[in-house]
Amino acid sequence: MNTLYEKKLFESCQILKDRNVIIALSGGKDSVSLLHFFKENQSVIGVNSFVACHINHHIRENSDADAMFCKKLCEEWGVKFYLFDIYVYDYVKNYNMSIEEAGRILRYEKLYFLLKELNYDFILTAHHKDDLIENFFIRVFRGTPIYNLSGFNIDEKIFRPLIDIEREEIEYYVNFFKIPFVEDITNRDERYLRNWIRNRILKEIKSYNKGFYNNIERLINESKELKNYLDKKVSLDYEITNFNFVSFELEKFNKLENYEKRYFLMNLLLRYIKAEKKYVDELIKIIQKKTSKRINLPNNFLFEKSISRCYLFKNEYLKSFEIVKDYGETEIVVKHLGKIVTFDNDMINKKLIVRNRRKGDKFKGKKLKDIFIDKKIDLIIRDTAILVEENGNIIWAEHISKEGPIKIKKIGRGL
Amino acid sequence: MNTLYEKKLFESCQILKDRNVIIALSGGKDSVSLLHFFKENQSVIGVNSFVACHINHHIRENSDADAMFCKKLCEEWGVKFYLFDIYVYDYVKNYNMSIEEAGRILRYEKLYFLLKELNYDFILTAHHKDDLIENFFIRVFRGTPIYNLSGFNIDEKIFRPLIDIEREEIEYYVNFFKIPFVEDITNRDERYLRNWIRNRILKEIKSYNKGFYNNIERLINESKELKNYLDKKVSLDYEITNFNFVSFELEKFNKLENYEKRYFLMNLLLRYIKAEKKYVDELIKIIQKKTSKRINLPNNFLFEKSISRCYLFKNEYLKSFEIVKDYGETEIVVKHLGKIVTFDNDMINKKLIVRNRRKGDKFKGKKLKDIFIDKKIDLIIRDTAILVEENGNIIWAEHISKEGPIKIKKIGRGL
Repeated sequence: MNTLYEKKLFESCQILKDRNVIIALSGGKDSVSLLHFFKENQSVIGVNSFVACHINHHIRENSDADAMFCKKLCEEWGVKFYLFDIYVYDYVKNYNMSIEEAGRILRYEKLYFLLKELNYDFILTAHHKDDLIENFFIRVFRGTPIYNLSGFNIDEKIFRPLIDIEREEIEYYVNFFKIPFVEDITNRDERYLRNWIRNRILKEIKSYNKGFYNNIERLINESKELKNYLDKKVSLDYEITNFNFVSFELEKFNKLENYEKRYFLMNLLLRYIKAEKKYVDELIKIIQKKTSKRINLPNNFLFEKSISRCYLFKNEYLKSFEIVKDYGETEIVVKHLGKIVTFDNDMINKKLIVRNRRKGDKFKGKKLKDIFIDKKIDLIIRDTAILVEENGNIIWAEHISKEGPIKIKKIGRGL
Repeated sequence: MNTLYEKKLFESCQILKDRNVIIALSGGKDSVSLLHFFKENQSVIGVNSFVACHINHHIRENSDADAMFCKKLCEEWGVKFYLFDIYVYDYVKNYNMSIEEAGRILRYEKLYFLLKELNYDFILTAHHKDDLIENFFIRVFRGTPIYNLSGFNIDEKIFRPLIDIEREEIEYYVNFFKIPFVEDITNRDERYLRNWIRNRILKEIKSYNKGFYNNIERLINESKELKNYLDKKVSLDYEITNFNFVSFELEKFNKLENYEKRYFLMNLLLRYIKAEKKYVDELIKIIQKKTSKRINLPNNFLFEKSISRCYLFKNEYLKSFEIVKDYGETEIVVKHLGKIVTFDNDMINKKLIVRNRRKGDKFKGKKLKDIFIDKKIDLIIRDTAILVEENGNIIWAEHISKEGPIKIKKIGRGL
C-alpha cells in the first residue's frame, strides 16, 4: 500500500466483498483512478466482478474521443467494457432543464438499465469530497431551497467509494501510478460556476482550514435529514393525472402549516418548472382567494385554484377544438385530452360535432356555465369537458349527461 | 442627494418618521456614516430625535481612544452622546463563550437599558449586507445547525437601516463626505475567520457574480423561517428550575419525531454548552435506554435520563455535604441546592445532621434507595434530597417524610 488514497479506498470498499459492480467511467482522473484501483486490487477488495461503463453524452467535441479512450483503456486493462450513447441536447429541448441535469437523468437511466441487465449489485461513481463541497456551493450560490443543499442522487444502488477522498489525494495516486486519463478542457473555464467554485472558493478554504470541509458536510447531511423530515410532515400528495397535468386537494392543503404549504408548492413547482420563490408566493396568494383563479407560470404552465382542487398543467389542455363526427363513425379521438368519445346505437348514424365549451353555450335551455357551477365542477374540468353538438344544439355534455349511447373512454392516463 | 447610499437610506428610514432612536456608534466607518447621515438629514428623514451610544468593550488597546473619538465626534456634530463600559473578558471567564458572543450579549444589554431609560423606539445598528453574508459564511464554516444560519438578533426594537447596503457603498459615502472614523487594525488580520471571509471569499463572490448575495440572503431567510416552523412543531419546553439546572418531561419528548428530538436537544445544549452534534447523538442514545443513566458533558455539565424526566445540570449539584445543626438552631441553609431546612417545636433543641444521601443509607429499617425507587423519584432528585440524621439514624427524608417540625423552604428558584 503506497498512498492515502489506497488506504481510504480499501476501507470504504469493504462492503463490496463478493459483490458485482459497475464502475461508471468518464475517462477523467477520478474514474480512471477508481478503475485502476479495482484492476490492481480485485482480490484484496474481494469484489466478485466489476465492469466499466462509459456513457457518451455527445455534448462536447471530444465526446467520441473520450469514449474511444475508455474503450481502449479497458481493453488494455482487460476490463469488460460497456458503452451507451445519450443525446442530452434533445432532452434539454423537450424539458426545461440544464444540460447538467439532463445529462444526469439520462446517464443514470442507462446505468440502471445495465445494472438490471447484468443483475449486478452496485453502480460505483467516482464522486469525491471536493465534488460534494462544490455541489453545496453551487446550490448556495444559485439560491436552492435549504432542504435541497445536497446535490447527489441518494439511492442504495449507487455507491461512492471516493466520497471521503479529496481531489489532491486522487491526483497523487494518478501521478504515482502514471495512469492515463482524458482531460475536460472546459474544466478550466471559470465562466462555468463549478469551475470557478473549484478554482477560487475551494482553493481558499483548503488553504485556510481543511476542517471546514467536515462542517460543510455536516450541513449537507442536515439538509438531507430536514428534507426527509419535511416529506414526512407534509403528507399531502399531488395526483399526476397525466403528464403535465397534476392536481391536489384543497381541503388537505389548507390543513398544512404555512411553512409546509410553501414546501409542498416548491416541490411541486420544482418538478415542472424552474421554480422560484416568487411563484410560491403567488400561488399562496391565489389559493387564499375565495373564487376560482388561474395564473400563468413559466414554461407554458398554468396554475389553477378551483373549487375542490388546485391544478398545475400545460396550457395545451385549454386548446380549442371542434371535430366533426361523420355519419357512421363510431369514435372520435381527442388526443390532447387523452379522451376517446364513442358513439353507439342511434348516435352512430348521425353527423355530430365534438368540441370544448364556448362562451354563451346553452344546454337544455340553461346556461352551461351555470350548470357546471351548480355541480361544483372545477374550472379546468369544465374547460376540458367534451360536448357533443347536433344541428347547433348541445345534446350531450361530459360531467353532466349520463353515459349511454355516448361515452368517454380514456387513453392511458387521460384526463 | 449624491450617493446610492443616501438614496437607499432615505428609503429604508421611512419607517422612522416621528420616532426617537439610538444609534449604536462604534466609531468605525459603518456607524459614523449612519450617524453622519442622520445629522445631515434629520428633518428629511423626519426622525423626531436621535442620540448616539458608544459601548467601550475594553477589549483592545485602543478601546479608550475609540470611546474618546466617538465622544468628540458627537460634540463636534452636536449629537447627544451616551457612553457605557462593559468588561467582556470577565464575562467570557464566567461563561463558556467566544469574545464576540459575550460582547454582543453585554452590548445589547446596555443598549436596551438606554432604550428603556430614554423611552425611545429603536436601536439602530450599522450592520450592512456584507456583515449579513459574512455571518452566514462564519456559520457555514463553523458547522452551525441549518436552522441557525442567520447571525443577527431578531428583535422588533433593533433596526438595521444599512442591511441592504454594501460595504463599497458605505465607503463611497464616507470618502465623499470626508467623514472621520477609527479603524480596527485587527480587521486586516486574516487569522480571524471573519476577516478571511471578508477579504477572500466575499471578494471572490463580488467579482464573480453579485447576484449571489441575493441568493444567500434568501437562504438566510429560509433558515429563519425554518427555525420558526420547528419551534412551533417542537412544542416541548424545558423547565429551568434553577440556573444551570433544567429538565424536561420524557413522555412528551418521546412523542416527538426523531428530527424534532434532535432539534430540541441541540437547542437545549446550545444554551448551556458549546453543543456539538456528537453530544446530541449520545443523549438520544441514553434517552432510549430503559434504565436511568447519567453522562458527562463539557463545561462540568451532566445529563441524566431518569424515570419521568431528563435533566441537564452542573455537577456542583452533586456535591456531598454534611452540616451540623446545633442545639437551638432553627434553620440550615444548603446554598448550592437553594434549600433552607427549617426546624420547629421539639426539633429546635436537638443536635442534628443535615446531609445528602450516601451508599447504604437506611430509613426506618428499609434501604433508602429502594424507598426512592418505589416512589419513582428521579435519580438527581434522590441525590439532592435533604436527609436529617439524629444519633446516626435518618429521622427525616425529603420527598419521603411528611413536612412537620422539619420543612424545606426554597431560596429563589431552589431545586
